Amino acid sequence: MFAPPIQRLIAEFAKLPGIGQRTAQRLALHVLRGSDEHASQLASAIAEVKAQIRPCQICFNLADQPTCHICRDARRDDSVICVVEDPADVISMERTHEFHGRYHVLGGSLSPLDGVDPEDLRLPELFRRLRDGQVGELIVATNPTTSGEATALHVAREVRELAPSVRVTRLAAGLSVGADLEYTDEVTLGRALLGRREL
Amino acid sequence: MFAPPIQRLIAEFAKLPGIGQRTAQRLALHVLRGSDEHASQLASAIAEVKAQIRPCQICFNLADQPTCHICRDARRDDSVICVVEDPADVISMERTHEFHGRYHVLGGSLSPLDGVDPEDLRLPELFRRLRDGQVGELIVATNPTTSGEATALHVAREVRELAPSVRVTRLAAGLSVGADLEYTDEVTLGRALLGRREL
Repeated sequence: MFAPPIQRLIAEFAKLPGIGQRTAQRLALHVLRGSDEHASQLASAIAEVKAQIRPCQICFNLADQPTCHICRDARRDDSVICVVEDPADVISMERTHEFHGRYHVLGGSLSPLDGVDPEDLRLPELFRRLRDGQVGELIVATNPTTSGEATALHVAREVRELAPSVRVTRLAAGLSVGADLEYTDEVTLGRALLGRREL
Repeated sequence: MFAPPIQRLIAEFAKLPGIGQRTAQRLALHVLRGSDEHASQLASAIAEVKAQIRPCQICFNLADQPTCHICRDARRDDSVICVVEDPADVISMERTHEFHGRYHVLGGSLSPLDGVDPEDLRLPELFRRLRDGQVGELIVATNPTTSGEATALHVAREVRELAPSVRVTRLAAGLSVGADLEYTDEVTLGRALLGRREL
């Protein structure tokens, strides 16, 4: 129903997460309706991001220089490293404004069924960072999912062996702020109970 | 929080309709995570669509050749032209599989307050198509909105003057298939009543 170049663009948009066929069509028609300039800005932004963004050589966060802006920031606390699965998790942590240490992006979580084994994650690079003795705490902020938990346990076990002086912690599990007990699943509620704190 | 090339891509994605800041960020990170090949396919599909797609010289539908695939199709009925506002409306009409005539894309609808006057639409081109006497019916399928209705009335008036032998019709207004009377607005229900048909 569409000319081939339009069909191709719709198919490319539809490959993006959360974009269905109908939305992809709307986006493609929007690009067609818009100015040539806007379209070429979008196209070049896509090309540039791939050309210029590389993993940080220290923490594997996204960077447009050899190291990322957090690793370059002298004001950050070198004694704490927060271990996350993905670069998007760094953004989420930064949004809290509660963490002032460094990061380490693993690049995923252990999931043997999906073929993700320890050697597929940036674990050797993490352990190497612990070797110089500067790090006192490792906050393992992998997702509270089966594979995230498995990854956290694996990291904790390895660190105990390689750098026993490093404290390994995990983010608290419990109720979301603003949540309703009635609608909270029993596993989360159970964790919140186990992790209860003195008032 | 993001390196400039990522921020630029997020900003470009956020300009697309229905894409908010959060979705734009997810799309940008998806592009970053994906292969270079996928990103360059998306970028080149955007560039190509702008380079290759032009309005059809006859009906102003989207075309990758001087005329669109519908105008080129010898099996279509030359005696009926369906007038629509946008190329997306051609797709909607084609999906019904009920229309086998030609189209004419006006490129919008009359809306003096937004600065859209008759001379901003492809009306002279439409009237020129009526001149050779081949067309017997003009189905005005502009949207059932204030500006769509105003456009339809304007077209009907002009056609009556320029080509009085051409029948000008309008799509039926009434209940959506599967709709519920209880939840149908009174204007639509009123139109459905006025347009009632013998069973």
